[in-house]
Amino acid sequence: MHEGVPGMHPRSHRLSRALWSLVLLVCVRPATAKGPDTLDIASAALGETRRVEVSLPASYDWATERRYPVLYLLDGQTHGGHAVASSEFLAAQGQLPELIVVSVHSTVRVRDFTQTDWPEAWIGGGGAAHFTRFLVTELVPRIERDYRTLRTPPFRILAGHSASAQYALHQLATAPAFFHAYLAMAPSLDWDGQLPVRELESALPRADRPARFAYFAYGDDYEQALARDLRLARALAAAAPGTLRAQVRAFPEERHSALPLLALIDGLRALYAGYALPEDLAAKGLAAVDAHYAALSAQLGTPVAAPEAALNEVGYWLLGSERVAEAIAVFERAASENPSSANAWDSLAEALEQGARLDEALRASRRAVELATRFDLPNRASFERNLSRLQEKAAPGAPPRAH
Amino acid sequence: MHEGVPGMHPRSHRLSRALWSLVLLVCVRPATAKGPDTLDIASAALGETRRVEVSLPASYDWATERRYPVLYLLDGQTHGGHAVASSEFLAAQGQLPELIVVSVHSTVRVRDFTQTDWPEAWIGGGGAAHFTRFLVTELVPRIERDYRTLRTPPFRILAGHSASAQYALHQLATAPAFFHAYLAMAPSLDWDGQLPVRELESALPRADRPARFAYFAYGDDYEQALARDLRLARALAAAAPGTLRAQVRAFPEERHSALPLLALIDGLRALYAGYALPEDLAAKGLAAVDAHYAALSAQLGTPVAAPEAALNEVGYWLLGSERVAEAIAVFERAASENPSSANAWDSLAEALEQGARLDEALRASRRAVELATRFDLPNRASFERNLSRLQEKAAPGAPPRAH
Repeated sequence: MHEGVPGMHPRSHRLSRALWSLVLLVCVRPATAKGPDTLDIASAALGETRRVEVSLPASYDWATERRYPVLYLLDGQTHGGHAVASSEFLAAQGQLPELIVVSVHSTVRVRDFTQTDWPEAWIGGGGAAHFTRFLVTELVPRIERDYRTLRTPPFRILAGHSASAQYALHQLATAPAFFHAYLAMAPSLDWDGQLPVRELESALPRADRPARFAYFAYGDDYEQALARDLRLARALAAAAPGTLRAQVRAFPEERHSALPLLALIDGLRALYAGYALPEDLAAKGLAAVDAHYAALSAQLGTPVAAPEAALNEVGYWLLGSERVAEAIAVFERAASENPSSANAWDSLAEALEQGARLDEALRASRRAVELATRFDLPNRASFERNLSRLQEKAAPGAPPRAH
Repeated sequence: MHEGVPGMHPRSHRLSRALWSLVLLVCVRPATAKGPDTLDIASAALGETRRVEVSLPASYDWATERRYPVLYLLDGQTHGGHAVASSEFLAAQGQLPELIVVSVHSTVRVRDFTQTDWPEAWIGGGGAAHFTRFLVTELVPRIERDYRTLRTPPFRILAGHSASAQYALHQLATAPAFFHAYLAMAPSLDWDGQLPVRELESALPRADRPARFAYFAYGDDYEQALARDLRLARALAAAAPGTLRAQVRAFPEERHSALPLLALIDGLRALYAGYALPEDLAAKGLAAVDAHYAALSAQLGTPVAAPEAALNEVGYWLLGSERVAEAIAVFERAASENPSSANAWDSLAEALEQGARLDEALRASRRAVELATRFDLPNRASFERNLSRLQEKAAPGAPPRAH
């Protein structure tokens, strides 16, 4: 079935965009995600037990062939709720890939997130090296062992706020290989004589760094704090060519502590800019769509195939343009790349039916119903209606075959 | 303990704002909300069973004296996740009161959300009157019977997107008494010759309407759709004086279907503008704070007492200014108005201790620990440390008294 963004399908020209949205939105129903897995990790690196919550994407249970990028969210006890809900919604909208979100709860923040001891501000800082050991040798290996994360190569996003954003920037400056994207929301920059900025000023101009993405957002800072923000923005802009894709965003109406609600949405969208199929690209055909995702892959430094939703758009565009054979080929590819997707098989069935290949359509439709039944998917009733219709067409008046 | 927004407490002048946030943020840990209650309501008005999810605020279990405004969110199957997470986060930040969120799942959207049958666009529209009967006679009475909603008077917020925003505007135009605030996100406006706009154009200029709040957000519309948006904005601006507080917001970079992620955050903030204690108001004392919330109550049309967090801010400001007796009075009021709040009793204990009223401090501190233990609150360990310290101060070297 067609679940795309309103306004992209040729049929939408018959009615206004807003009216089509009336019709289509009933289908855009993300599966309700179950609650997160809660892990209490006995960390040798930290000398304490650390709580972590792992939220899996809506498709995790049924799309058993899929692997996912991972968002490691620091201060997860405060920001996990909105981060999971926002990234899930944006993924359902096709603006992001689905993510596994690992919310790392904090205990003694200033200890873990500062790179030096700086007793004039705090006694007991400088634990960042231990915290890195926790992430790199304990947490991430466990996540990548126990969950279907992207692995060849992996794609790990590190996000933090305030002190934990200071930590994220420290990683970007001093050990950029491990994480691939860094979201720093209102980072604390004044530690130890603005060390977080100085580290980046000296590290980023080096040409031998891996290509990475950095997002930096700041809120209603003024005077000295704003001056530090602008200094950080300059440091990001001074990275060696080709080593850093950076996005800096000011939210002058946001208080420091509330900033991450909007900044995380904005930062994930900036990281995945271009992930949603651009409007009108479906009409340019499959080769143009593949070229788009090849360029996106180069930008992200990780392979991004055309998402199932994008192939679905292209297929329905072709179908609406009476290019049925081409549509069937696109839907066949979508089903072969997403063999557990009930919707991919249902769409293929619709195209095969239009191509008068009724037996194959019945097989594909039956597969859609089987998958939707096995995983109790929200669109199951719609797939069943399509199958009944096909069966009636294949053998009018006959009792429905068991499926 | 002090959980306020960084930068408001006099102690914050000793360190920079950002550094204080390092210290304070570890305390801003909203209790993890449990999952929603799922209700399947057999509706006579709709002739079907309708699913509704009720998400309760973080304090619901322990703040047994509190009652809450209710957000009735249409298309809840799509928008419930981010609406609950965003409103919970903003409430933890003190920008909104805690809300009960009732996510109403949709079935046949165009049937339920359109005020007339308009067969040239859709067969079977015009069911809004039935849907209103469902809300007014079935759903809302059940919610107000089974949950601790605000009741004298109630405060009911109706929010929708696209077709369901069309429905919300229809209610605002034709039956504005029942709901008190209306959030219309990218409403469908072209139904039946722009009837949604025409209804408002004829209704809003009447002077005998109840005072209400309306929020209208639109996305990347252009040409005819944008013209309709602007016509709606003019209709809202033409309301009779004193009958409508309206906020119109354009999100030109947001696609129609994704708009609610940002618009719901923005709309709730617009509705509750002024709810967070304005910066520096604590320094003007309790009378100024009460005057602020009296003005806010008048604007909202519902009583809003100074929230516990605001009283806490004032109390700690007084304490930091060595005005201990006044601080104690403020914390006593906070505890008496929020008798189940462990934090209110813990703060009172701190003030009493500074006032050298050690026996009373011990009683208040013990009450904080009792409540935190009974409800398993995240700050329990901190309250226990405070109690131990007080006990040691009261009887140095003695074994701790049972509590």
